[in-house]
Amino acid sequence: MSEQQIVLASRPEGRPTRDTFRYETIELDALKADQVLVETLYISVDPYMRGRMNDARSYSQPFDLDAPIQGGVVARVVESTSDLLTVGDTVVGMLDWATKSVVDAKQVRKIDATLAPVSTALGVLGMTGMTAYFGLLDIGNPQSGETVVVSAAAGAVGSIVGQIAKIKGARVVGIAGSAEKIQYLKEELGFDEVINYKTEQIGEALDRTCPDGIDVYFENVGGAIGDAVLDRLNPFARIPVCGAISGYNEQADLGPRVQSKLIIARARMQGFLVGDYGKRFKEAAEQLGKWVSNGELKYEETIFEGFEQVPDAFLGLFDGSNTGKLLVKL
Amino acid sequence: MSEQQIVLASRPEGRPTRDTFRYETIELDALKADQVLVETLYISVDPYMRGRMNDARSYSQPFDLDAPIQGGVVARVVESTSDLLTVGDTVVGMLDWATKSVVDAKQVRKIDATLAPVSTALGVLGMTGMTAYFGLLDIGNPQSGETVVVSAAAGAVGSIVGQIAKIKGARVVGIAGSAEKIQYLKEELGFDEVINYKTEQIGEALDRTCPDGIDVYFENVGGAIGDAVLDRLNPFARIPVCGAISGYNEQADLGPRVQSKLIIARARMQGFLVGDYGKRFKEAAEQLGKWVSNGELKYEETIFEGFEQVPDAFLGLFDGSNTGKLLVKL
Repeated sequence: MSEQQIVLASRPEGRPTRDTFRYETIELDALKADQVLVETLYISVDPYMRGRMNDARSYSQPFDLDAPIQGGVVARVVESTSDLLTVGDTVVGMLDWATKSVVDAKQVRKIDATLAPVSTALGVLGMTGMTAYFGLLDIGNPQSGETVVVSAAAGAVGSIVGQIAKIKGARVVGIAGSAEKIQYLKEELGFDEVINYKTEQIGEALDRTCPDGIDVYFENVGGAIGDAVLDRLNPFARIPVCGAISGYNEQADLGPRVQSKLIIARARMQGFLVGDYGKRFKEAAEQLGKWVSNGELKYEETIFEGFEQVPDAFLGLFDGSNTGKLLVKL
Repeated sequence: MSEQQIVLASRPEGRPTRDTFRYETIELDALKADQVLVETLYISVDPYMRGRMNDARSYSQPFDLDAPIQGGVVARVVESTSDLLTVGDTVVGMLDWATKSVVDAKQVRKIDATLAPVSTALGVLGMTGMTAYFGLLDIGNPQSGETVVVSAAAGAVGSIVGQIAKIKGARVVGIAGSAEKIQYLKEELGFDEVINYKTEQIGEALDRTCPDGIDVYFENVGGAIGDAVLDRLNPFARIPVCGAISGYNEQADLGPRVQSKLIIARARMQGFLVGDYGKRFKEAAEQLGKWVSNGELKYEETIFEGFEQVPDAFLGLFDGSNTGKLLVKL
């Protein structure tokens, strides 16, 4: 049986390109005990994966050169030697970017395909939704009436953050980069205000939309947007730091140092990884599922079709063109 | 009765100079009800006061131009119309930089001159000690065996931070700027390691002295030292941000943005002001007093003599020459 995978062909300097990736034909091993052969249905492309392409100390292992890239995948079991999974089951896990994979059954988690579209296991009901849930609620802890600012607000995580903040009674100001996104966030998702960082002066726009200051800033982008928000924090503001996509492709991402700003506001800025909340995934999945099923939490997916689209989907993360969760459907 | 005060003559651009200050002769008003006339004994000069010299949004009011500078003062009551205080009492409070002042009795707090030298009410048993206590214990929360790094380690706050961290069983690495300070911190205060940032390459020195990474960084200086520490944080590191003296005189203090570093370490960086812990001052004062009296907590004072020395004492904060608490004795 002959399948395909995508390996890291070279470590990108700056923004990745198509040459960062290489397709390879693979021969899959026969199944050993307690394994499954899975056929990939959806591949998730996520900004954090850029960090793993560097050969540098980080929270997770760098991808190896010439080895398959791994990420969130939803797949269907097509062969099984495991008591845990049977043919036809749908599973989610951190798997190779490949059309099919042989993996230990324990490496994946079965999902109930009758509850929600299976793609949501990579988005609103998966790591993306949980990232929003834990970052906003555990670190940001927004209170009713407080002002929450979300950058990359139309992105996979940001769009969920803003909606959860609304559910908690906060006033929500999003930052996004196109008229379509702004319309979507205001009219579909109920954000109170949305700033277009490409056409507005960010500092003035924050002053206008946050007349009472900023209590929570969910940081997805870093850069000049983060700098401007940090100048407008209320006392005891909280800043969950989920990402800093504006700097991921930079060698030296320079900006004003934050120490004095944090003292002035007595603010707390905290990086987090969703993986650290493993013990509370069940709680989050149940709550997110309830909000989705009662219509309080909406989600959008941008779906590329075909395994050959994976590199373009990944590269699309960095041009800000997508709304919601970026997926590739095989 | 003719006395002297020091007013803010001009807002400094960059580092303050003697021209930042102007001496004026004042005529004191007669006491109204519930007031005291106090004679200044000690004046505290502190880095945070530089921030109040700017005309900018901050956590406390900017000093007014041509109005007296205010700061921590220990004084003796020489006249009283208050039931709370009698002539001869020693008090501490936020008072004008003046040789004598008329203030409401409630604006000062009586101190027990028999327990410790009265100057300690401005240092180890005052705001300085409490800043170290709350920043380190409440935000840094060092655990036994963890590595705590302290910048400006021979300074008023830093020297107390390092000793409390030792009391809590942590391994303590200080950063200071002279051979004398290093000897003092290692031999007198029991720091495990001290880095001379003026003669050593800070990154290499941190690698050498913190082979197990850094769990708590008590930030007093910002700048390149802070940058280097943030590159070496352990997972879930805590960074109480007390000050950033290296940037206080800068217009634009540029450095690598911290967002990615905080994510990689899932670290928490939090600014704080000792004033926010008002409800727990009693707890801190009692604990600090116990540690001082049983010899676990030592303190050093650098004392300038004479009211005419106040500007030079303040300017001395920024050349890194002092050890321990900087005071002026009148």
